[in-house]
Amino acid sequence: MPKKTRAKKTAGKAQLAASKKNNTRRKKYIYAFGKNVDGDSSMKPLLGGKGANLAEMARIGLPVPPGFTITTEVCTYFYENKQSYPDGLETGLQQAVASVEKQMGKKFGDPVDPLLFSVRSGARDSMPGMMDTILNLGLNDETVAGLAEKSGNPRFAYDCYRRFIQMYGDVVMGVQPRNENEHEPFDAILDKLKEERKVTGDTDLSADDLLELIKRFKKLIKQRTNQSFPQDVYAQLWGSVGAVFSSWQNERAIVYRQKYNIPAEWGTAVNVQTMVFGNMGDSCATGVAFTRDPANGLKVFYGEYLINAQGEDVVAGVRTPKPIAQLAEEMPVAHKELEKIRKTLERHFRDMQDFEFTVEEGTLFMLQTRNGKRTGLAAVRIAVEMVKERLMNVKTALMKIPADSISSLLVPVFDEKSRRQAKRIATGLPAGPGAASGKIVFSAKQAEWRGRRGENVILCRVETSPEDLRGMIASEGILTSRGGVSSHAALVARQMGKVCICGAHGIEMDYGARTLKAGNTLLREGDDISLDGTTGEVFSGHVDTAPSEVNQVLDGKLKAEKSYTYQLFDKVMKWADKHRRLKVRTNADSPLQSKQAVALGAEGIGLCRTEHMFFEGDRITHMRQMILAADSSERAAALKKLLPMQRRDFAGIFRAMGSRPVTIRLLDPPLHEFLPQDDASRRALAEELNVSAEAVIERIRSLHEENPMLGHRGCRLGISHPEITGMQARAIFEAAVQVQTGKKPIKVEPEIMVPLVGFAAELKNQVEIIHRVAAEVQAKKKVKIKYLVGTMIEIPRAAMQAGEIAQIADFFSFGTNDLTQTTLGMSRDDSGSFLPAYQELDILPRNPFASLDREGVGRIVEIAVNEGREAKKDLKLGICGEHGGDPDSVKFFHGVGLDYVSCSPPRVPVARLAAAQAVLEEN
Amino acid sequence: MPKKTRAKKTAGKAQLAASKKNNTRRKKYIYAFGKNVDGDSSMKPLLGGKGANLAEMARIGLPVPPGFTITTEVCTYFYENKQSYPDGLETGLQQAVASVEKQMGKKFGDPVDPLLFSVRSGARDSMPGMMDTILNLGLNDETVAGLAEKSGNPRFAYDCYRRFIQMYGDVVMGVQPRNENEHEPFDAILDKLKEERKVTGDTDLSADDLLELIKRFKKLIKQRTNQSFPQDVYAQLWGSVGAVFSSWQNERAIVYRQKYNIPAEWGTAVNVQTMVFGNMGDSCATGVAFTRDPANGLKVFYGEYLINAQGEDVVAGVRTPKPIAQLAEEMPVAHKELEKIRKTLERHFRDMQDFEFTVEEGTLFMLQTRNGKRTGLAAVRIAVEMVKERLMNVKTALMKIPADSISSLLVPVFDEKSRRQAKRIATGLPAGPGAASGKIVFSAKQAEWRGRRGENVILCRVETSPEDLRGMIASEGILTSRGGVSSHAALVARQMGKVCICGAHGIEMDYGARTLKAGNTLLREGDDISLDGTTGEVFSGHVDTAPSEVNQVLDGKLKAEKSYTYQLFDKVMKWADKHRRLKVRTNADSPLQSKQAVALGAEGIGLCRTEHMFFEGDRITHMRQMILAADSSERAAALKKLLPMQRRDFAGIFRAMGSRPVTIRLLDPPLHEFLPQDDASRRALAEELNVSAEAVIERIRSLHEENPMLGHRGCRLGISHPEITGMQARAIFEAAVQVQTGKKPIKVEPEIMVPLVGFAAELKNQVEIIHRVAAEVQAKKKVKIKYLVGTMIEIPRAAMQAGEIAQIADFFSFGTNDLTQTTLGMSRDDSGSFLPAYQELDILPRNPFASLDREGVGRIVEIAVNEGREAKKDLKLGICGEHGGDPDSVKFFHGVGLDYVSCSPPRVPVARLAAAQAVLEEN
Repeated sequence: MPKKTRAKKTAGKAQLAASKKNNTRRKKYIYAFGKNVDGDSSMKPLLGGKGANLAEMARIGLPVPPGFTITTEVCTYFYENKQSYPDGLETGLQQAVASVEKQMGKKFGDPVDPLLFSVRSGARDSMPGMMDTILNLGLNDETVAGLAEKSGNPRFAYDCYRRFIQMYGDVVMGVQPRNENEHEPFDAILDKLKEERKVTGDTDLSADDLLELIKRFKKLIKQRTNQSFPQDVYAQLWGSVGAVFSSWQNERAIVYRQKYNIPAEWGTAVNVQTMVFGNMGDSCATGVAFTRDPANGLKVFYGEYLINAQGEDVVAGVRTPKPIAQLAEEMPVAHKELEKIRKTLERHFRDMQDFEFTVEEGTLFMLQTRNGKRTGLAAVRIAVEMVKERLMNVKTALMKIPADSISSLLVPVFDEKSRRQAKRIATGLPAGPGAASGKIVFSAKQAEWRGRRGENVILCRVETSPEDLRGMIASEGILTSRGGVSSHAALVARQMGKVCICGAHGIEMDYGARTLKAGNTLLREGDDISLDGTTGEVFSGHVDTAPSEVNQVLDGKLKAEKSYTYQLFDKVMKWADKHRRLKVRTNADSPLQSKQAVALGAEGIGLCRTEHMFFEGDRITHMRQMILAADSSERAAALKKLLPMQRRDFAGIFRAMGSRPVTIRLLDPPLHEFLPQDDASRRALAEELNVSAEAVIERIRSLHEENPMLGHRGCRLGISHPEITGMQARAIFEAAVQVQTGKKPIKVEPEIMVPLVGFAAELKNQVEIIHRVAAEVQAKKKVKIKYLVGTMIEIPRAAMQAGEIAQIADFFSFGTNDLTQTTLGMSRDDSGSFLPAYQELDILPRNPFASLDREGVGRIVEIAVNEGREAKKDLKLGICGEHGGDPDSVKFFHGVGLDYVSCSPPRVPVARLAAAQAVLEEN
Repeated sequence: MPKKTRAKKTAGKAQLAASKKNNTRRKKYIYAFGKNVDGDSSMKPLLGGKGANLAEMARIGLPVPPGFTITTEVCTYFYENKQSYPDGLETGLQQAVASVEKQMGKKFGDPVDPLLFSVRSGARDSMPGMMDTILNLGLNDETVAGLAEKSGNPRFAYDCYRRFIQMYGDVVMGVQPRNENEHEPFDAILDKLKEERKVTGDTDLSADDLLELIKRFKKLIKQRTNQSFPQDVYAQLWGSVGAVFSSWQNERAIVYRQKYNIPAEWGTAVNVQTMVFGNMGDSCATGVAFTRDPANGLKVFYGEYLINAQGEDVVAGVRTPKPIAQLAEEMPVAHKELEKIRKTLERHFRDMQDFEFTVEEGTLFMLQTRNGKRTGLAAVRIAVEMVKERLMNVKTALMKIPADSISSLLVPVFDEKSRRQAKRIATGLPAGPGAASGKIVFSAKQAEWRGRRGENVILCRVETSPEDLRGMIASEGILTSRGGVSSHAALVARQMGKVCICGAHGIEMDYGARTLKAGNTLLREGDDISLDGTTGEVFSGHVDTAPSEVNQVLDGKLKAEKSYTYQLFDKVMKWADKHRRLKVRTNADSPLQSKQAVALGAEGIGLCRTEHMFFEGDRITHMRQMILAADSSERAAALKKLLPMQRRDFAGIFRAMGSRPVTIRLLDPPLHEFLPQDDASRRALAEELNVSAEAVIERIRSLHEENPMLGHRGCRLGISHPEITGMQARAIFEAAVQVQTGKKPIKVEPEIMVPLVGFAAELKNQVEIIHRVAAEVQAKKKVKIKYLVGTMIEIPRAAMQAGEIAQIADFFSFGTNDLTQTTLGMSRDDSGSFLPAYQELDILPRNPFASLDREGVGRIVEIAVNEGREAKKDLKLGICGEHGGDPDSVKFFHGVGLDYVSCSPPRVPVARLAAAQAVLEEN
């Protein structure tokens, strides 16, 4: 009985609430699955992933225990209406239960042959372990006797009952440890009873012992909550439904949603399903399986099971499950059926499936199926191979590979030589491919703490649980000594692309002593350890890394036919390039970086930051001389020394890029960034420049800014010091002439970019200088250079004046880093002090510096795009902020019609794939 | 013959240029005045002020020498087409000359009876002394003989010729001093000749001497320019026209336009007018006059003249002119005619006129009339009195008073006691009312230099010239020992509202010794001096100031009927209030400020900055305690101590404001602003708070921000420290209860404002806290408080999300200071290093922190207004940045439909007047 709803009814609320209810009254809140199926797999937003797929499996004739799904709309209603339920839900639920009773020939709450339910959450996107589950619901002091009688197995019945009371007491009634040091209170009672009975395993307890345990559990609940464990089965059901909805806002779920950008508004559905038992004896089993290997994508039947167990036992990692192949010997019929189902599922869902099953006294039941989470490598491999197998077409395959995951093919591997010298201390299941080295930590807290300090850490746990999530995020790699590939650690690592080795049995961890032992090797917290998540090998000490196979092939150090990984990468990139319209450029400041980016598919440079060049070698001295110049002739002298250096840089980059376009940004940062920070270096500089230390210090003081981000930088520098713009333009054009007329002439097309423009007149001022220098150089060298002059759009005013500015610019490049800072009034450097709180409070769920803030910054970009193009139809448009490598942002930029995105070299493949997906998503 | 145009024709340019020309070919570029009149006074944008009014005077039968005006459109064309002229201009000009020739019965270039012209600039707004003028044009070696013959005065003819050659050589041919030390080269030749002839005055030179001078002048030009002084009168005319157009972009003109916000695009017209001569002998005179006193607005005929002189002599201040009253004796007929014209002009133009006249051999000619520049006081007085005289209606009067000038009625006057004790050393013409004290400087450069250092300076010059403009801007007051009310100093002071005393003959200045002497008082550069610009008295030393008469009346220290100034103020304010729709509030943080603002007409508080309250007395200690609190209980303890103080502040403000609305902004600045900056105070603080100095220093370090403007401030503070918001809300509501239930109960309506919101969720978070506290306080005290909760719109994202935010806010208040900083990506504190260059280069002609940047910030405001109102029809809208007191910005805010502006107390009258003008400008 939904308590809150009733309270609301009695309160007799205002008309508004009443009309809201009227609006929702006509909706269907409950969907059945079983003999009658209301839903199907397309209804995930409404039924959640689990509910929709249970319906779909029932629809195609797979053995699904009957039940029903309460929709996500009820969850939304629940949170919008002070945790109450819509009218009509109560009646609907009773009808749904009655329908299941009819199919099963059992009654919910029947003391003779009770129908039992599981109650599980099920959001649109799977959120494993994030929310709560209740099993064996419908047991009470009367029905448990019926179950004992009917199953002929009193011990089993009492075991179910005590498990149910514990779950219900914990999840619904909130009986949990009262502080960090307290043990889980139900477990404590269990342990105490085992001690009294002098037994070690749970299974050693007799039926009578379990009856005693049930008594003590109920007493605990009464003591802690001042309420009795409910005997009314409908009260149990409503309590559980409410608990599942409430769990949508528990801390774990919130952290998870943040990590995966799942909106809180989606809500969860609740699945109420007839219980089947994998724990009624040795003819029973329960397991999870994947239709292919989720760690590396290999086409093998992959999974694990436990005889005589309930589903949660497998995932929890308490008992180590057996590999699925062994089921062929233990339960050949069930295994054969599963093999068949495996094929059916892949053919039907046309993707790798991750499913749960239970064998109850020899009969197989399917409890869940879903598209299996997989590592980046597996995602690529499965997509490519399923196209080969005609299970999916290329477009689907492209959509099935999260764009980010392509970068997991580019992560470093262990250097062969270093690896051969390292000591292998154990082997486990390779659950997350890749190479990770770091300091051992034994708790999530330690991992977070050291991670924040910039240390690389490896989280070592016997097994992990949802509470470890933040620590796992902070770690380079995860090592567990227990649990299989479907354990929590493996699952999370898979989703996050973390290096992970599970169930490394050879390792013993001692949390108290903060040590781990493998054979005769003893390692302490803080010692180095290395994990090869691709092979499952654990090494003591640090192992050096080497570039990925893909990079080795691209660098010509490995032959393409020797690397299947490279072939996968190449295939996907070719597919992507065939579909995408958005060009992908790179942000690169040196010939080496440029070369790497071209190898990864960059079609040009979207941002070459000239200031980086000034820090190298003795250039910084000339730069400082320029800044500290007493007059314009001194400044000119310093600039003259910088000119040939810049020219060399640009020539190198032009050569590395072939005839691809190269966008060069003129000097951007405030001048004080080039000056030394401490007194000693300032004095040294003064001596070097042969001026007084006081003069240097005074000049540095005069350059100090309150808010350098909003200060004298960008084109403001070029306007107050036109000679800097002149020197840079000269270096660019002279380099272009050199490359264009050299021994191996390359047609060069520099695109000169003026930063931080807010006023058309600023751009005009700089454009005039650039054109003048261009004309001079071309006339002198008698060479024609094709070049463009454009601007960054990185402050809101520029977007507001895009029409005016476009008349002077050949191109716009959105500087979304600064545009985010100014549009949000938020300094990237300083936002660390409040952004975490903002993410926790759900005010700003995504970091706006990583993924574009569409409503704010995105809207401003759109205004500039529309008005810029209106003023100049063929205006070239690009973006060169960090967001150029973020798939979601890339899709946005495609949507508003940019010509290209530019990102750091390693993100180029990600952007290529995301750009293709953007096209496919249009249809 | 326009050289550039011809060059262009020969070049045979592309089609675009040709079509442009075709477009402009049909336009009328030249407008005549004289017997035939093409223009009238409404055509100022096209003909410039001077040209339009010459036409108007001719139209109403006043004696205007005939001529014609080349339009401002030609100026625009000139600058858009590389200083060339439109097709057809040449023919048009020849026709216009022919028409004047016909009227005058003389020929341009006729050796017997030559027609001579003056060529003068004339922009839409008068820009005195800013651009160049050429007189006696049409003289050459032949025509000068004709003039000599015809006038029977060879000396006069040669004098005209040598003046013309000098002006032409300087202005058109660029013969000017080659460095700072060189004397004006023509003057140098003149001085040398006088030395050779052993005479002192120019008038002592004979006709033959002048012939010699002419020879030497021509030689100088040839030497310097390698070109001869042109004998072709049309070449002279085109050269002069080009020089006038070019002078539109000379440095003086640019500086002037900056100061008065005149767009460069307006351009200038050129007036070519038949020469009349005030210098043909003692029956000739020239003068300038005002129909009322421009310094104080008194209804008296006011002006000055010189016998036997050309117009420029009066303005230049070389000879001290005689007051106009004296003309009644010297030239009674002309004086009588002038008196009549004075009345005609005021009746016709319905405003105070400033006009120039020349008497040529007894015949009066009008050379110019325009609305007279006047001081703020005069503007108010003339407007009020002209309404009384039915010369204008109230609406016109309101439009005639520049809104800023009302504040000149509020400037301090000298304290009577201090003034009685001061030593009066001289008296001059009171040319700019007000009281000014400061250090003596003798050059504009000194004035600028000291002014930048924050010193108050008085610029003391024998006379001023356009070159002194920047120095005059930098000074508190201006003192000259020569020149009358129409001298440059008086004129500029009038326009800028500077305190000014002119022609203080008793003072001798010695620039070399850097001293000034008045009787037996000797003052040096840097000594204090004081000017009473209302009475014309000069005092040595510093004189204390007292509040203005208006303030004294408002404070009850002076009776209204004793102060005519107050009556003027009151009248204008009453008129303004009757017309305006925009409400005017004030930014005030204390009861005293609030009271003052109410006296000046504030209708509420638009911004009460709560942080200012934390700096007083021992509050800062509690504030620091709060910031440095180790845990939330320590923080709560510190906040508890702050609560009663804040409550007291708010109660005081509520009382001072009566039942007017009070908008209170929650804590806004980053916390580090409250902490001590130097190590010693940090140690002292540590001791006081009984914590380690290291802890304090560490906390301060951790609070340091790279860009505090974009950092942890505004609502970000209230979100991470909800207890601060809670305390402030509690203080507000408890104060409201106190005031509403006190002995003299006042109905209070606090409007609580959440700063720096960018996300609707931020506001929601804070609004929930405020409502919760409000409910608690109201329940506890059993009093109902009417209150609003709103937000500042001060970052672009907030504007982009205005629709979402409006759903949670009762009001928006635009924080245009921060909105300007973020929209322009420009820190107010740091922009000083480049804004001056920007103003000089015309990139950003107005300081965007003083006057709203309409295209950028204004557009963002408009988006927020429209989308906010769309989401919530009755959303209250206001603005509380500095711009709330800037007339032009006020008009913008009226235009976009805000409900109120809020500004500092002294700007309240300005905003009231500007708001009324905004309404009147709509029609």
